Amino acid sequence: MGPHPAVAAIRLAVRRVLHDILTDHRRDPEAATTAAARAAAAPGEARERLRCALAPSPLVFVACSGGADSMALASALAFEAPKLGIRAGGITVDHGLQPGSDLRADEVVLRLREIGLSPVESIAVTVGRDGGPEAAARDARYAALDAAAERHGATAVLLGHTRDDQAETVLLGLARGSGIRSLSGMAAVSGAGGRYRRPFLHLDRQTARKACMAQSLSVWDDPHNADPAYTRSRLRHEGLPALEKALGKGVVEALARTAQLSRDDADALDAWASQAENSVRDATGLLECAKLYALPPAVRRRILRRAAIEAGAPAGSLFARHIEEVDRLITGWRGQGAINLPGKVVAQRQGGRLVIRQG
Amino acid sequence: MGPHPAVAAIRLAVRRVLHDILTDHRRDPEAATTAAARAAAAPGEARERLRCALAPSPLVFVACSGGADSMALASALAFEAPKLGIRAGGITVDHGLQPGSDLRADEVVLRLREIGLSPVESIAVTVGRDGGPEAAARDARYAALDAAAERHGATAVLLGHTRDDQAETVLLGLARGSGIRSLSGMAAVSGAGGRYRRPFLHLDRQTARKACMAQSLSVWDDPHNADPAYTRSRLRHEGLPALEKALGKGVVEALARTAQLSRDDADALDAWASQAENSVRDATGLLECAKLYALPPAVRRRILRRAAIEAGAPAGSLFARHIEEVDRLITGWRGQGAINLPGKVVAQRQGGRLVIRQG
Repeated sequence: MGPHPAVAAIRLAVRRVLHDILTDHRRDPEAATTAAARAAAAPGEARERLRCALAPSPLVFVACSGGADSMALASALAFEAPKLGIRAGGITVDHGLQPGSDLRADEVVLRLREIGLSPVESIAVTVGRDGGPEAAARDARYAALDAAAERHGATAVLLGHTRDDQAETVLLGLARGSGIRSLSGMAAVSGAGGRYRRPFLHLDRQTARKACMAQSLSVWDDPHNADPAYTRSRLRHEGLPALEKALGKGVVEALARTAQLSRDDADALDAWASQAENSVRDATGLLECAKLYALPPAVRRRILRRAAIEAGAPAGSLFARHIEEVDRLITGWRGQGAINLPGKVVAQRQGGRLVIRQG
Repeated sequence: MGPHPAVAAIRLAVRRVLHDILTDHRRDPEAATTAAARAAAAPGEARERLRCALAPSPLVFVACSGGADSMALASALAFEAPKLGIRAGGITVDHGLQPGSDLRADEVVLRLREIGLSPVESIAVTVGRDGGPEAAARDARYAALDAAAERHGATAVLLGHTRDDQAETVLLGLARGSGIRSLSGMAAVSGAGGRYRRPFLHLDRQTARKACMAQSLSVWDDPHNADPAYTRSRLRHEGLPALEKALGKGVVEALARTAQLSRDDADALDAWASQAENSVRDATGLLECAKLYALPPAVRRRILRRAAIEAGAPAGSLFARHIEEVDRLITGWRGQGAINLPGKVVAQRQGGRLVIRQG
């Protein structure tokens, strides 16, 4: 008898990603060497770690909170990695946001060791306040994962985000109303050198949960996930179910597909804008309004956005309405004055040229 | 004392669109002439109508259901049009879906005449079943509006869709998961020669309702709008409010902005695909796989989609997964067989070329 269908599904998803990781690893041996060199150069680091980094067998970590998604991911990694000659390790991040979170982290470490992962580490982080509680926790978490991956010379870090997480991310992006890049959700491969991989991005949360039950893995339900103080939690427990009720059961899948299509579209348009930008600058590097005018609005506005960011406007504060106003210097010119953008950047039209710089 | 702010807002929105219509009208006098000629050629049509069509003053219709949005639109048109030398008429469509709908239509005609519109017509249509009840009603309605506009040689037909309708349309498109074109909602200008105009696309439903109250216009609440049997109605009364509760009050505005940005992006990518298509065909007109491979996925998939539709696949039945499968003939070639697409269209790779044709 084969494994439970949910267990088979999570293992297949992880196997595919491990194959990709091996292919990339072989194609780019320098990355492995660099990782080894980095490990060797780290002062006071243990000899054992250095030995592992120098060994040909790559190390893949799973980032695990102890919740169903990442425990399922850890179990599939522990099962699949040895068959491919990959070492499987685990990291859990203690965000220190709840009393007893350190004990919880220790417990996750024990569980990950029990299923055969090694090395396993718990890392305590300090969560700041920048960008709200969720963003601050995420920043602290990725900084810790990055540091751990560097320290161990790991080839990749697997993340347990599911298709449901992806759907939520698309809706959060939609609420910003800032265009298709913010609809493209999380990438299957991201981070420096493609370090982060999300094997479950096409798998639903229910499958991960079932896989844990089928393997008798006890999981931890983070109370934050049900706390209505968090936007994502409200979306998960109220927003998405109401949307599904109105639009039908396929909403989560449709949102995930929208993410993929939007990502490809945004990539193509960014490439176009990047190429077109060179052709619309004059000899002194200024943007020529007549040439900008001839471009499709989608391309022109991307060039304007890039120019504003290059001049010092913070990307996060630059909204669609700012770019629209700058665009009107091109498409609706009636002698209007300079336009103030975030980061004290000023855009103005002078003699058929667009001048965007910090004022 | 000026008018109520809501009344001022709807009038401004209509005034702007009427200015655009006049500009287009003057820029393209041929369209007016054609309309006049058409009216002249119409057998048995009244002399009065011909005279109007030949007169320099353009005719603008409002499509009015008697609901708050379109009654507000009608009132603003009746107020603004004469000041610009535009004749303002009204059309109401009787879908015949509810008992007494003919009496309702007669009542709307009276109200439109009361506020000064002329000519005003009620048109009874027969709603088919193609594509579900909402799509069938829409098709019948636009066919009737098209015919009436032709008959009268009208320059434009105003539609009362608000920002809230736009937000709902974006969510309906999102539920299809078929990419950014379906996220782009309704256009401010659409139809043959830009006949349809939506002056309220940036105005919220609440403003239209307030403007009716401020002008003591009685309005009719279509029971369909509250009937949970209709997807749009469920979205309006349950889906969107739940999303707003989870994501904050700006959701409707963000969705409307997403529509505009997506539309521009989709237009630009369509233009790119259309241009790139010529460069990837060989001398015999077949698509060359190597050249397709070099294109960004977003552009390549658009070319594949166009080719499938050109070969006879019905656009409405061609889903993202179909195109993905054809795309794998390019990006994941391992000798796979022919791929069956809707409309008996078959795609296969032969000698480095992609052959897409009806089988």
